[in-house]
Amino acid sequence: MLLLASILCLTLQANAQQALFGRQEVISPEIHPDNTVTFRFRDAKAIEVKVTGDFLPTQKVETPRGTYDAPGTADLKEGENGVWTYTTPQPLPSELYLYSFIVDGLKVNDPANVYRIRDIATINNFFIIGGGQGDWYRVKEVPHGAVIRCWYDSPTLKMQRRLTIYTPPGYAHSGKRYPVLYLLHGVGGDEEAWISRGGCASQILDNLIASGKAQPMIVVMPNGNVAQEAAPGESPAGFVKPSANLPHTMDGTFEASFPDIVNYVDKTFRTIKKKDSRAIAGLSMGGFHALHISAQYPGMFGYVGLFSAAILPREGSRSPIYADQDKKMDAQFAQKPLLYWIGIGKADFLYKANADYRKKLDEKGYKYVYFESEGGHIWRNWRLYLTRFAPLLFQKH
Amino acid sequence: MLLLASILCLTLQANAQQALFGRQEVISPEIHPDNTVTFRFRDAKAIEVKVTGDFLPTQKVETPRGTYDAPGTADLKEGENGVWTYTTPQPLPSELYLYSFIVDGLKVNDPANVYRIRDIATINNFFIIGGGQGDWYRVKEVPHGAVIRCWYDSPTLKMQRRLTIYTPPGYAHSGKRYPVLYLLHGVGGDEEAWISRGGCASQILDNLIASGKAQPMIVVMPNGNVAQEAAPGESPAGFVKPSANLPHTMDGTFEASFPDIVNYVDKTFRTIKKKDSRAIAGLSMGGFHALHISAQYPGMFGYVGLFSAAILPREGSRSPIYADQDKKMDAQFAQKPLLYWIGIGKADFLYKANADYRKKLDEKGYKYVYFESEGGHIWRNWRLYLTRFAPLLFQKH
Repeated sequence: MLLLASILCLTLQANAQQALFGRQEVISPEIHPDNTVTFRFRDAKAIEVKVTGDFLPTQKVETPRGTYDAPGTADLKEGENGVWTYTTPQPLPSELYLYSFIVDGLKVNDPANVYRIRDIATINNFFIIGGGQGDWYRVKEVPHGAVIRCWYDSPTLKMQRRLTIYTPPGYAHSGKRYPVLYLLHGVGGDEEAWISRGGCASQILDNLIASGKAQPMIVVMPNGNVAQEAAPGESPAGFVKPSANLPHTMDGTFEASFPDIVNYVDKTFRTIKKKDSRAIAGLSMGGFHALHISAQYPGMFGYVGLFSAAILPREGSRSPIYADQDKKMDAQFAQKPLLYWIGIGKADFLYKANADYRKKLDEKGYKYVYFESEGGHIWRNWRLYLTRFAPLLFQKH
Repeated sequence: MLLLASILCLTLQANAQQALFGRQEVISPEIHPDNTVTFRFRDAKAIEVKVTGDFLPTQKVETPRGTYDAPGTADLKEGENGVWTYTTPQPLPSELYLYSFIVDGLKVNDPANVYRIRDIATINNFFIIGGGQGDWYRVKEVPHGAVIRCWYDSPTLKMQRRLTIYTPPGYAHSGKRYPVLYLLHGVGGDEEAWISRGGCASQILDNLIASGKAQPMIVVMPNGNVAQEAAPGESPAGFVKPSANLPHTMDGTFEASFPDIVNYVDKTFRTIKKKDSRAIAGLSMGGFHALHISAQYPGMFGYVGLFSAAILPREGSRSPIYADQDKKMDAQFAQKPLLYWIGIGKADFLYKANADYRKKLDEKGYKYVYFESEGGHIWRNWRLYLTRFAPLLFQKH
C-alpha cells in the first residue's frame, strides 16, 4: 500500500507540474458500437458550439476567388455541467476522419483528443472508424516496419536534406535486399506528410504486407520543396509558419536533383538497384513530380503512380526538365513501364486535366491503369490510392 | 507567367480543400530582436484573453490535494480588428518555453503557431529564445543524426514494443561501433518523450557532438510503461487518452525486462558491447528506473544519470528487483562506476528524497557528481541535465 500511495502521490504531483495547464474530463470523440459518434465539449460560458469535419456533408462556400466545397457543420447542444454534445444521426462508414470545434465562431481543437494532424498550417483532430477501409490505417497486431528520419547529401542542391524512410518488418535482420517505392507529397507538404496520420503510410504498408497483399518494400518519402532543407520546425530555418507558397516549386529543380536521393538510398539501404524494383508515386504536386521524374529518367522506375496529379502545362518553363515532353514520354513508354497508374476523384479540381492526359495516352496507345474514386483533392483519396497502388508493385519478387 | 498563375491557382485550391477549415493571419509569437516576445490572438468576440506559460512567474494554487506552483498568466489587450496582444515587459532568457491562451476561461492553443508539444494528455505551444541555453535545442547547420522508430521483441514481456533510437551523424557510412546512452522518460511518458520538443534529445546530441563537447553516441529511448506496446496512438490499443496512471508502473517489471532492450540494440546496431561504453539515465520515474536497473545489473552500465529521480521507498514491493537494495548498491559501487550523476531542482518535490539519497551515498563513501539547478520537476531542467550529462560520457573513446 505504501508502494501504491507513493506512486499515486508522484503521479498527482508530476501531473500538477508537468502537465501545467489543467485537464479536461469529458470523453470525445466517443465511437459507439454501431459506429455513430458522439462529440463532447465542456464550456459552460459558450453561446454556440459547432463541430466541423469531413464526415459531414460538404457545403458550397462562395469567395472572391470562386466557389468551393467546404466541410459542413453540426450544432452541439448544451447539457448538464456545461457539456455540449453532438451525436451523428447515422453510423459513419469506415474511414479516418478530421474534425474541429467552432466555439462562438472560434475554431479550436478538441481538448479531450490529443490526436491531431498538421496539414500545411492547419491542425485538426482525427479519429478512425474501423470495420472497412479505415482498418488499413490502424496499428494492428502485425509485424511492424521501422520509420527512419535521416539526412541525405544533395550535391545538386548543395544542401543536406531530411528524408523519411520506411523499412519493412524484418529488414534489420533479414540480410535481404528490397524494392523501393518513392512516395511524394503535395504542395505545402514535406517529408512528414505521408508518414503522418494524414498519409498513414507506415500503417498501410505494415497491414498490406502482413495480409500478403503487398510485397515487403522500402518506402522513401523525400521533401519535394527544394527551398526547404527539412519540414517546418525541423531545419535551421526555425519555426516558420508552414506555407504552400514556397519558391522553386514545380520549376524543375526538385526533379533535376532527384537522382541524389536515389543514390543516397541505394548507398545506405539494402535496395535492389534496378528499374523493375523501383516505383515512384505522388499526390497532387507529387504526382506532377512523379510524371516528370519518371519521364526524365526512363531507366529508373518500372512503376509510376499519379495520385490526383497536378498535370499542368509547362510550355512557359525554361527548365530542361519540362522540355520535349512528348519525346520523353515516347521514350518512357517505348520501354514499357510495368505499371502506369492514374487515380483521381470525381470531384477533384484536377479531374479534367487528368482526363485530358488520359486521352493523350489513349491516342498514343500507351497502357495505364485507371482508378476513379468519389470525392475531391483530399487525403482520404490519397490513402485509398496507396492501398490500391502498393499491392500492384514488385509482384515478380 | 502561365507557370506562376498555374501554381498559384493550384496553391489556392489546394489550400481551400486540403486545409479545410480556414486560416489565421496574425503572427504569434513574435520574438523581437531584444528577446521580448509579443503574443497575438484574433477574436473579435472574446471578452478576456490571457496567456499562460512557463516564462511567467509561477503562482501558488491551492487544491484539496495540496498547494502547488502553477504557471502565471498575463492579460492580452484588444486592439484593432479584434486582435489581442501581449508583449513581455522584459527580454526572456534563452530557453524553450511553453504557453497557451485562455480565452474567456477556455484554454486554447495558439492557432497561429503550429509548433506544439504533447506531454501526457496536455498540448501546449512552444517557442525558443536563442543566444544561450536555448541554442542547444535548435536545429542548426551541423551534421545531423538519424532518428529511428522501430520495434523490439521482448521475450520477458512477451510483446513487440516500440523504441526510439538516435544514431549519430555519420553512423550510416562510417562502419564504426559506438557507445550507447539509454535515456528513460517519466511517469505518463513514452518512447516519444525525449525525442519530442519537450526533451529535444536529437537536437541536443547533434549540437553537442558538432561542437566537440560530446562523443558520437547512440541514444536509445525505450517505453518504460510495460502496460504499453507503444506510445498512445502508436499501438494496437488505438487512440486511448494518454495517462500517468498505468498498471505495472514501478513494480519491477520494466527493470526485469530491460536486458531484452540491450540485447536487441546490441544485435541490431553497431554498438560497443561493454560496460564502459554503456550509460543509463532517466528523468523522474526514469531516474528511479536508471537507479534500479544499474544496481540490478552491475556489469551493464559504466555511467548512471539520475535526473530529478523519483527515489521512493520500495520495502512494500514484492519484486526481487527492489530486494536487497543496500547489497546491490555495495556490489555496484565496488565496481566503481565511471560516473554516477545526480541532478535536481531546488524547487523539486523530490528534492528531499534526493538529498536523503545523497546522504546515504556520502555515508557509504560512494562517489557521485551532483548538479543542482533552479526550478522544479519540469522539462526545462531535464533538457539542461542532458546537456550537462552527455558531455561527461565515453570520454575514453
